[in-house]
Amino acid sequence: MAFFDLPVPELERYLPDRTERPDFDAFWQSTLADARSFPLDATFTPHPTPFETLEFFDVTYSGFGGQTIKGWFVLPKQRTGKLPCVVEYIGYGGGRGIPAHWMHYASAGYAHFIMDTRGQGSSWRTGDTPDLDGGGPQIPGFMTRGIDQPETYYYRRVYTDAVRAVDAARSHAEVDPDRIAILGGSQGGGITIAVAGLDPTVQAVLPDVPFLCHFERAVTMVDSYPYQEITNYLKIHRSKIDQVFNTLSYFDGMNFAARARGPALFSVALMDTICPPSTVYAAFNHYAGEKTMQVWPFNHHEGGDLDQTMLRLDFLQKVLR
Amino acid sequence: MAFFDLPVPELERYLPDRTERPDFDAFWQSTLADARSFPLDATFTPHPTPFETLEFFDVTYSGFGGQTIKGWFVLPKQRTGKLPCVVEYIGYGGGRGIPAHWMHYASAGYAHFIMDTRGQGSSWRTGDTPDLDGGGPQIPGFMTRGIDQPETYYYRRVYTDAVRAVDAARSHAEVDPDRIAILGGSQGGGITIAVAGLDPTVQAVLPDVPFLCHFERAVTMVDSYPYQEITNYLKIHRSKIDQVFNTLSYFDGMNFAARARGPALFSVALMDTICPPSTVYAAFNHYAGEKTMQVWPFNHHEGGDLDQTMLRLDFLQKVLR
Amino acid sequence: MAFFDLPVPELERYLPDRTERPDFDAFWQSTLADARSFPLDATFTPHPTPFETLEFFDVTYSGFGGQTIKGWFVLPKQRTGKLPCVVEYIGYGGGRGIPAHWMHYASAGYAHFIMDTRGQGSSWRTGDTPDLDGGGPQIPGFMTRGIDQPETYYYRRVYTDAVRAVDAARSHAEVDPDRIAILGGSQGGGITIAVAGLDPTVQAVLPDVPFLCHFERAVTMVDSYPYQEITNYLKIHRSKIDQVFNTLSYFDGMNFAARARGPALFSVALMDTICPPSTVYAAFNHYAGEKTMQVWPFNHHEGGDLDQTMLRLDFLQKVLR
Amino acid sequence: MAFFDLPVPELERYLPDRTERPDFDAFWQSTLADARSFPLDATFTPHPTPFETLEFFDVTYSGFGGQTIKGWFVLPKQRTGKLPCVVEYIGYGGGRGIPAHWMHYASAGYAHFIMDTRGQGSSWRTGDTPDLDGGGPQIPGFMTRGIDQPETYYYRRVYTDAVRAVDAARSHAEVDPDRIAILGGSQGGGITIAVAGLDPTVQAVLPDVPFLCHFERAVTMVDSYPYQEITNYLKIHRSKIDQVFNTLSYFDGMNFAARARGPALFSVALMDTICPPSTVYAAFNHYAGEKTMQVWPFNHHEGGDLDQTMLRLDFLQKVLR
Amino acid sequence: MAFFDLPVPELERYLPDRTERPDFDAFWQSTLADARSFPLDATFTPHPTPFETLEFFDVTYSGFGGQTIKGWFVLPKQRTGKLPCVVEYIGYGGGRGIPAHWMHYASAGYAHFIMDTRGQGSSWRTGDTPDLDGGGPQIPGFMTRGIDQPETYYYRRVYTDAVRAVDAARSHAEVDPDRIAILGGSQGGGITIAVAGLDPTVQAVLPDVPFLCHFERAVTMVDSYPYQEITNYLKIHRSKIDQVFNTLSYFDGMNFAARARGPALFSVALMDTICPPSTVYAAFNHYAGEKTMQVWPFNHHEGGDLDQTMLRLDFLQKVLR
Amino acid sequence: MAFFDLPVPELERYLPDRTERPDFDAFWQSTLADARSFPLDATFTPHPTPFETLEFFDVTYSGFGGQTIKGWFVLPKQRTGKLPCVVEYIGYGGGRGIPAHWMHYASAGYAHFIMDTRGQGSSWRTGDTPDLDGGGPQIPGFMTRGIDQPETYYYRRVYTDAVRAVDAARSHAEVDPDRIAILGGSQGGGITIAVAGLDPTVQAVLPDVPFLCHFERAVTMVDSYPYQEITNYLKIHRSKIDQVFNTLSYFDGMNFAARARGPALFSVALMDTICPPSTVYAAFNHYAGEKTMQVWPFNHHEGGDLDQTMLRLDFLQKVLR
Repeated sequence: MAFFDLPVPELERYLPDRTERPDFDAFWQSTLADARSFPLDATFTPHPTPFETLEFFDVTYSGFGGQTIKGWFVLPKQRTGKLPCVVEYIGYGGGRGIPAHWMHYASAGYAHFIMDTRGQGSSWRTGDTPDLDGGGPQIPGFMTRGIDQPETYYYRRVYTDAVRAVDAARSHAEVDPDRIAILGGSQGGGITIAVAGLDPTVQAVLPDVPFLCHFERAVTMVDSYPYQEITNYLKIHRSKIDQVFNTLSYFDGMNFAARARGPALFSVALMDTICPPSTVYAAFNHYAGEKTMQVWPFNHHEGGDLDQTMLRLDFLQKVLR
Repeated sequence: MAFFDLPVPELERYLPDRTERPDFDAFWQSTLADARSFPLDATFTPHPTPFETLEFFDVTYSGFGGQTIKGWFVLPKQRTGKLPCVVEYIGYGGGRGIPAHWMHYASAGYAHFIMDTRGQGSSWRTGDTPDLDGGGPQIPGFMTRGIDQPETYYYRRVYTDAVRAVDAARSHAEVDPDRIAILGGSQGGGITIAVAGLDPTVQAVLPDVPFLCHFERAVTMVDSYPYQEITNYLKIHRSKIDQVFNTLSYFDGMNFAARARGPALFSVALMDTICPPSTVYAAFNHYAGEKTMQVWPFNHHEGGDLDQTMLRLDFLQKVLR
Repeated sequence: MAFFDLPVPELERYLPDRTERPDFDAFWQSTLADARSFPLDATFTPHPTPFETLEFFDVTYSGFGGQTIKGWFVLPKQRTGKLPCVVEYIGYGGGRGIPAHWMHYASAGYAHFIMDTRGQGSSWRTGDTPDLDGGGPQIPGFMTRGIDQPETYYYRRVYTDAVRAVDAARSHAEVDPDRIAILGGSQGGGITIAVAGLDPTVQAVLPDVPFLCHFERAVTMVDSYPYQEITNYLKIHRSKIDQVFNTLSYFDGMNFAARARGPALFSVALMDTICPPSTVYAAFNHYAGEKTMQVWPFNHHEGGDLDQTMLRLDFLQKVLR
Repeated sequence: MAFFDLPVPELERYLPDRTERPDFDAFWQSTLADARSFPLDATFTPHPTPFETLEFFDVTYSGFGGQTIKGWFVLPKQRTGKLPCVVEYIGYGGGRGIPAHWMHYASAGYAHFIMDTRGQGSSWRTGDTPDLDGGGPQIPGFMTRGIDQPETYYYRRVYTDAVRAVDAARSHAEVDPDRIAILGGSQGGGITIAVAGLDPTVQAVLPDVPFLCHFERAVTMVDSYPYQEITNYLKIHRSKIDQVFNTLSYFDGMNFAARARGPALFSVALMDTICPPSTVYAAFNHYAGEKTMQVWPFNHHEGGDLDQTMLRLDFLQKVLR
Repeated sequence: MAFFDLPVPELERYLPDRTERPDFDAFWQSTLADARSFPLDATFTPHPTPFETLEFFDVTYSGFGGQTIKGWFVLPKQRTGKLPCVVEYIGYGGGRGIPAHWMHYASAGYAHFIMDTRGQGSSWRTGDTPDLDGGGPQIPGFMTRGIDQPETYYYRRVYTDAVRAVDAARSHAEVDPDRIAILGGSQGGGITIAVAGLDPTVQAVLPDVPFLCHFERAVTMVDSYPYQEITNYLKIHRSKIDQVFNTLSYFDGMNFAARARGPALFSVALMDTICPPSTVYAAFNHYAGEKTMQVWPFNHHEGGDLDQTMLRLDFLQKVLR
Repeated sequence: MAFFDLPVPELERYLPDRTERPDFDAFWQSTLADARSFPLDATFTPHPTPFETLEFFDVTYSGFGGQTIKGWFVLPKQRTGKLPCVVEYIGYGGGRGIPAHWMHYASAGYAHFIMDTRGQGSSWRTGDTPDLDGGGPQIPGFMTRGIDQPETYYYRRVYTDAVRAVDAARSHAEVDPDRIAILGGSQGGGITIAVAGLDPTVQAVLPDVPFLCHFERAVTMVDSYPYQEITNYLKIHRSKIDQVFNTLSYFDGMNFAARARGPALFSVALMDTICPPSTVYAAFNHYAGEKTMQVWPFNHHEGGDLDQTMLRLDFLQKVLR
């Protein structure tokens, strides 16, 4: 869609109030502590493929509640010394897929760790990780699963899995634990921001067209999915508006961005009606580390696509090598 | 949509092969036995409303796995003797809502028991019952939740809840346990057929434009939701086609219809692209009890709406009183 | 659709100029006097139904031009003394339907009078009242029937029928003529506001998401039907813009609201593109009686649905009993 | 839409049963006799335009019930002797418009008489003729106005106006009454067929992509307007199916075609979802005069457009000069 | 679509910066000089039609690069003396069609010259003129053909053809070369403005709902075709944004309007999402000759249609006769 | 879309008549001889990327008319001996993009040659090759560019470029000229089949969901682009139907398939409305070499996506190594 959000100069200074409740940090410390009370149990099983230049490994590790999370791990066959590692999170509805999806970062000389997203992995790419908690009445999708309380909300489990994915990547013998980048687009970008706030030691943070930021504005500004799942829920559960936004405050990228420290490369697309520019800037402008915004004026939610991948590789080259 | 399925004379003799596996009955006997191993714990708590002619009760009882299921129970304030009871199941995405949704049957002199549908109750009417099992990777919705195995499939839990709803209704002191009708539209109609097959002692069976029948045809004939959730799943999980249809065979209305015995009033809409006529007739033509089909030639999935409600009341009057 | 109209604080003070012409009151006095020159001829014929708790009556009375208007009248079977009466008007395209549509108010202890809408009653619920005047060239629908002159405009006939419906309800022996509420949603809400201005003696006024208010803004702000029938007419009849808005000024809810006196409960939905919030507030802010606005932030034109019905019953309890 | 109806060889022999009731001819004889009991009162008032090669006249004459019908009449300024005359009927929703719409036939040497369509003339071209009879509850549009009885059906009035238009054209001093062609596209084509059956003395009959033929098939085969107005009506008025098709039998082009005698040039478009090919062939194959079908394989309802106009002029040249 | 652009008072003073580069005039002088270095070779071959009041001629002449351009030329059969001439340009996707498309201006006493548009003439009306230059990678359509450089851009060829069309019209023996009007709608309106700037000697300029004006705003304001072809190009060719707008600056109606001198009648439609009102006013407000704007408030891109044709004829009568 | 074409058993034996004219082979021999009369001039310029495991080369060579065509060439950095080579053609609207698009085949040990498609390379991936011939009036897109004659048709140039791409790939010093595979999806699949027929010496042929097959059926069966460009052309150019299908007969995959000899792996998606199953089977069933069909029952035009890539790699492993 044509330009529909604020003009760029206003976007650049758009700084809505953050929404975190007083116990935001306590909530997450307790959540992560619980998860880390389970052994990480990271396993990396060689997975044969026809790709002769790379080595693929089928990954399992313990995420939220000690539940088993799947992933892929990729190394260039020709390598020397410990490698910087790229941890990648996936967009809404997709899963880890097959090795052929993950060629770029290892071909460019990085270890590459891909986290499967629990329960998803069916809409556009397969996944292999269940989400054991079904939760209360919900709109089809994942945005309102368990949304009545922060403790039961779906993204509590996902963000925790994502922090543990960094732990798992760092645990691999060929990974240099001091050179970790986290990245992802859309939902993967939202998770990236959350992890950047929950683990400020990561060395590079690359969220593209991030989702899960500034919910209040998103759900009243656009009619697009997945944000609209929340709108649809409130359309019927008319009395739960405050309750739902209370829950979401524990998961909003703005609140995590203010706690992050790693150097960051964001991107935004000005015609993106899935993750509207102002919601992306809301997180970016609150982001507390060094940061750069790549603007794609004529793009929708696809953003910079592989052109952005090339910029990511430039950025990683500068920051991690 | 205009007529898109078989002509009526072909519909009337359309009898596709049933799909049940040899252990179909064992699967369900074992499933119900497990559920009945938990105490029913049916409670009926008076619920005040401004409706002076009716009495409403907030219901809980134990469904699949002994999990708590919600419902409503309604009685006419003026009554004498035990009443025949209508047990109602709800369409896809909806929940039990509020008492104001349930005026007709009690106003007509019946006890009325409404079962909430676990996990749903958000898309068009509120519900209050969680579905505790999240399951593997899935398409947004409920059609592919746990679909990789019959044991984990979402509708195993729902059908079991529904059989237990009849148990709960029969357990009420003012209900005549020998005059039970079961009914519902769309998903509610599909559940009705399943219960009719699982508990052939119910005295009246009234499925309208039933869903969950003849999956193989439905998913290759129409592009409409919710059947299309299955198509979308198979579009990505390309290797699971046989596995998915094996699971669905345990939940197909055709297979239950052949085991049902209660006198039945079905309805079908010839322009219904949600539940195509041939899938409805597939169940109807296999139905083993006395049966009548009400055809609505110019209707879509709304079928006969309140005109059908009036026909239902006529039918109940004949069968139950 | 997401928020598309003014922010709530601006809505609350939005007070556009009213549009009535100097002869507005004379036009309506003369119109009503003409209608009242015909005998009311209200008849209430018992109509059998399976609903044992209520009594239904098939109604006829004389509306505009003495033409016969149909309706339903409902009483709780158990009753004592004269009852307060709810007069209900119907949304665009629908008619009085069948008794099963009208369970709530009589079940809650009110007399309930439903006016059929002339000529409509086919799009989503049946009706039984013809509109004898065909009128000049028009867009399909009712919005431009006879629109070239106030005298020939369709809603002159409908609003007059609606005032006479109150007369007919008051004439019933079991109705307390000093406890009349009028209500309706969408078109029914617009008619409610008109009647409130034309008969300021009604005791309660409950318009939900009202249509037929602030036409100039509506037709240039949204592309939705039925307002767009007017846009479509002016798209072709390019020279009639002033003439059409002159006609509409005699039928605009803003102008009636300023003449109303009954205590009112309005509702508005902030995502309603059929009856945009600012057009609803235009009438509400001009409303001259005591008034309350119920805001549904995440709803479209369905507004509060049965949740609003429950609020209506609360309001009626306070005002009429 | 791509080919969706029968293959051409099947179309060419498609001959469904006609539907006329025994009193079909009596109904129309009586209807036309009533109309002809009113004086024709055809007036032709010169209407100035900037077009120097043509003369335009504003027409009025008496149609159904003696009601005043508008039209245009056009003559080439340079002319000698009585002229053959083309009487034209208009597509659904349009009216007579302005003189600039009617350049072709008079420029080609014909008198040209255009009948305005009562009540329409707003959707895509202005009209000036009211339809005085409003009728019972209806779907927005004209297809269900008065549809409960043949006597009150809208098209009874329109077809009668159309027969009287031929009378009016023949009455003009410069028209040769023995060289009359009737033509029109879509609704205009349907009216053309009706007039050809009601007045078999016309010398040329040119219906393009005619509407109003073989209603039973049309309303169950396509979802397009205006046929769908009938479907929508029956969707709600579920009990009136036989009654509605009884009415329509008096207005079906198949039944008129069997009574027509004038040499005819039809056209059909194979991708036409508004007037499906089989409904056009149903009328064509029943047509009792000499006839030719022009097939446009890759066209939708626009058919041959001006390419068809050129073929019409060829045909008229052969038949009328 | 409802009003979506600036309010009318703001439109009337909307004067964005023009975008021409310093060599704008040199670019066009050189371009036209090149074209005029080829002989005009205008031929007018009589073309028989059934229209007895007009004479049609099949036209060829040399346009850009001396390439052969087709057209039609029409004269009233009855005429005396040299005639004023209307040169007409065509909307996007259409071609010169057949003579029956061109009845109005010659019937009103003008010579009428219609230029075919190279390469188009297939989407809604046939054409006969190829565009020999294919150009680099492009979006389907004509908006991005050769867009990487002004020299190769498609509209360089079209605008040059259009200036030569005026030369060809003036060259005809029956045309008064001092009474030339140029006109067209949409793309034809954009070409009209360009020719008015490139040949300020034309006596009347009538662009309706003109396209090809104020590209920067158009492509970021609306999602409609054909402007969106440019958006789509930049969505993929992410690095060419400045390059593309540099090219477009040589073809923007604003820049030509500032160089035009002929008396002008513009029109604009306030609901036009194809050529948004502010882009039309951008050209109009920069227009340097006498000018009038006809506003159609309730119209989309169809603007005034034949009502505008009548206004054009009034305007031509005043200016050219 | 759900199943819309023939059932699979009928697809498997669907063998429509081929359409080649008597001079089909002469046409192509002459076309290729002309192209080969120009020197191939294949250049392979190293192109730096961050991908350390692969080497990329920017390619140019001479295609149709000796015009310069771009491409990419990729080699695994670790390699020994001459490599089998995969020549890839691209889907409609896309171009060669950037190196990051081409990771799989070289990573799996093949030389990989990607041909840019002239004139396209803008709709979803950039390209760099112009199409110098603009051609006659056309529908936006490439399907009707020059369609009036086989000699001028766009795909004559593309297919010739594609044959020369194989020549260029074979000319590379590190490629084993006796182990060439050709492949592509959609348009790339159609080109693959054409090259397989024009150069039967290629050792492996892998067309996925191929386009450009059995045009007569495609354009009358589906409404999807790009086939619909042809329908749209014939909708306006009503007299050119035979002429257009004559041209297309020289470019139909059925006719090339009958001349092909290389072992082939096809794929088809049963819900593919872009390239309907029967058009794919029409080519497959005429294919004269060894052949296998991979059927994807629940897929649309995406077919097997990367799952198909894995099957391709299996097939190549068997056939080329």
